[in-house]
Amino acid sequence: MGIDPTLLEQRLDELYTIGADPGGGAYRPLYSSAWATAIERVERWLTEAGLETHRDAVGNLWGRAAGNGKSIVTGSHIDTVRHGGRLDGALGIVAGLTAVEALLKAKGTPKRPLEVVAICEEEGSRFRTNFWGSRAITGSIDSVDPEIAAAMRERGLDPTKVANAAREDIDTFVELHIEQGAVLESSGTPLAIVSAIVGTAHLELTVTGRADHAGTTPMESRRDALTGAAAMIQAVESIARSLGKPAVATVGKVRAEPDQINVVPGRVIFTIDVRHSDLGARRALEERIRSLCATIASERGLGLDIRMLQERPPVPMHSDVRAVLTRAAKDCGVQAVEMVSGAGHDAQILAARCKVGMLFVPSIGGRSHCPEEATKREHVELGTKVLAKALELLAY
Amino acid sequence: MGIDPTLLEQRLDELYTIGADPGGGAYRPLYSSAWATAIERVERWLTEAGLETHRDAVGNLWGRAAGNGKSIVTGSHIDTVRHGGRLDGALGIVAGLTAVEALLKAKGTPKRPLEVVAICEEEGSRFRTNFWGSRAITGSIDSVDPEIAAAMRERGLDPTKVANAAREDIDTFVELHIEQGAVLESSGTPLAIVSAIVGTAHLELTVTGRADHAGTTPMESRRDALTGAAAMIQAVESIARSLGKPAVATVGKVRAEPDQINVVPGRVIFTIDVRHSDLGARRALEERIRSLCATIASERGLGLDIRMLQERPPVPMHSDVRAVLTRAAKDCGVQAVEMVSGAGHDAQILAARCKVGMLFVPSIGGRSHCPEEATKREHVELGTKVLAKALELLAY
Repeated sequence: MGIDPTLLEQRLDELYTIGADPGGGAYRPLYSSAWATAIERVERWLTEAGLETHRDAVGNLWGRAAGNGKSIVTGSHIDTVRHGGRLDGALGIVAGLTAVEALLKAKGTPKRPLEVVAICEEEGSRFRTNFWGSRAITGSIDSVDPEIAAAMRERGLDPTKVANAAREDIDTFVELHIEQGAVLESSGTPLAIVSAIVGTAHLELTVTGRADHAGTTPMESRRDALTGAAAMIQAVESIARSLGKPAVATVGKVRAEPDQINVVPGRVIFTIDVRHSDLGARRALEERIRSLCATIASERGLGLDIRMLQERPPVPMHSDVRAVLTRAAKDCGVQAVEMVSGAGHDAQILAARCKVGMLFVPSIGGRSHCPEEATKREHVELGTKVLAKALELLAY
Repeated sequence: MGIDPTLLEQRLDELYTIGADPGGGAYRPLYSSAWATAIERVERWLTEAGLETHRDAVGNLWGRAAGNGKSIVTGSHIDTVRHGGRLDGALGIVAGLTAVEALLKAKGTPKRPLEVVAICEEEGSRFRTNFWGSRAITGSIDSVDPEIAAAMRERGLDPTKVANAAREDIDTFVELHIEQGAVLESSGTPLAIVSAIVGTAHLELTVTGRADHAGTTPMESRRDALTGAAAMIQAVESIARSLGKPAVATVGKVRAEPDQINVVPGRVIFTIDVRHSDLGARRALEERIRSLCATIASERGLGLDIRMLQERPPVPMHSDVRAVLTRAAKDCGVQAVEMVSGAGHDAQILAARCKVGMLFVPSIGGRSHCPEEATKREHVELGTKVLAKALELLAY
């Protein structure tokens, strides 16, 4: 069973032109016209591959080869971040449909239903939501924000029917994705089998001091919220460093008020993204950060309020799927490593309803979510071959 | 010669209602309708006081009592910052016109021309400019930004005629202002004679690292622009503290890019406001900050670009005017202290064309540029009395 590397690259190129962002890269936000065009393109490829397609209640696109029992599903998300790259999400869809197309050609009808899915949204780059598509599949969307509902109606989707997207008949979901980091590249490894997806906590800290005139307030009379926040940002970095891998903690957003050149900041709001593959370790990391920030605030006479914006536990990949992926890699003559995913993926949501597994191929320079996002041609081909082998082991 | 404290408070109250800001305080940006209403109100008071009024080419409002030779001028600015207080600028205008009104009543026509000015703009809170009124008076505006020109035309002012606002016939400018800090209050002193206005440098620093995924990039592989900037912000504070009074350095604005919760910041831009009453000391302070920030950037593999946005040298108040103010305070039975102004004032601009001097009264809690800005009634009265005495010594 052959995978055509040229076809893979052509399809990736074609998808990348849809939603070209004037500032570089592609931008295909949920329910946008670029998003709709990309869905149509994938639908055509699925049909050409001999799959029966349908769109569910939130706009996830499915292509199905009939079989008995619960489905084996592969795919990824079709949306992108702003200035997104060529592979994040797109690779999992293109590799999935190209692998299934090759399997159908070489092996005929599968024993089990074999499906490819283009998940409508994962990135959270348009609305205040993420994992929108996979949460619909698991039936875990309770209500639809009015802004999203309006965008759904524009695409002919009925926001009151979201529950219809739920699936109970998936056995296994397996996804090929780029690593989005530089671990594989720097160790010279062409493929990884994901052992778990890290747990993430998103915190928002509000530091309250007193806004004062920058010229008339002596240094020792100040309650400067920004110098306090700067001490906390330093602490976040040093705590994560001292704990060592795979602990990471990041301050990504910061805003000072009143944000004037000649006024001592009276209030600073910043976020912390805390991750670890072990729930206890993630909580301990978060606890040390909370405690040190509270000490800094108290020493400086500042107020501190910490709000949890989002908390997701670590999700282990299913041992059965890991075993299949390991065997598939071996069958393809590849020595794969196991690694923890520092990024979130739809698999962590779908794990609530089915067995899940993931494959990573290296990202050049570790770059992702940017136009420089790239993976060597031979790694794209290799990942797709191992994916196809795993689907064969699971569905035939 | 009596000053009516009730009249002072009434006029301050009346002016404070003009441009009431929905978010609290007053906002009278240059050439706005609130600004125009405030000018009209002051014009009425000037006329009622028996002064001949006129508006110059940029909208400074003058009220004049005729005399021989060069003018003795008092006053302050009519514009406010957003959410501005009741006294910043307003006090100098109300005290000036109330003092001149009392002098004319008690002493008749002055020997020298005696003028009250409501300067059109000092705060820089609408356009990318400040000291607009006083720079026009000193003839130092070379060109008018198109946005300002459009706003001028809306108020019936001709932007091509700005040069006509220049005055060569001012002998002395003296201004009563609130301290905007807590030095007087904390030492229990009711009045200060300003010895100098600090020199200010405004710097903009751009720290360049690399934007990376917050989940997939190990701590030791990052070039985080924000943790680098945080170390610099800490350094700015500790250098200014270690130099001691009157050195101050403030980071007021900060912006991280791409400003996403799950992305390591690739670029951070922040400002530093550096002040000292001694030019050499201000430059030394700035130099230490530049050098330490460069070291931090280099240790962390970050790029650093430092741009000077604005640089104003310290301006000493004229010794003749200081002597007059000292004598006036003594005549009023007040023990005044000398102090450096950490804030900028129109006097520092007007010093290029005439002798200048300033009086400060205490700010309760040091608060300014906010609705809480306040000065005790007896301090407002006392400052106005000393101002009136000084004007008498200068003009009669």
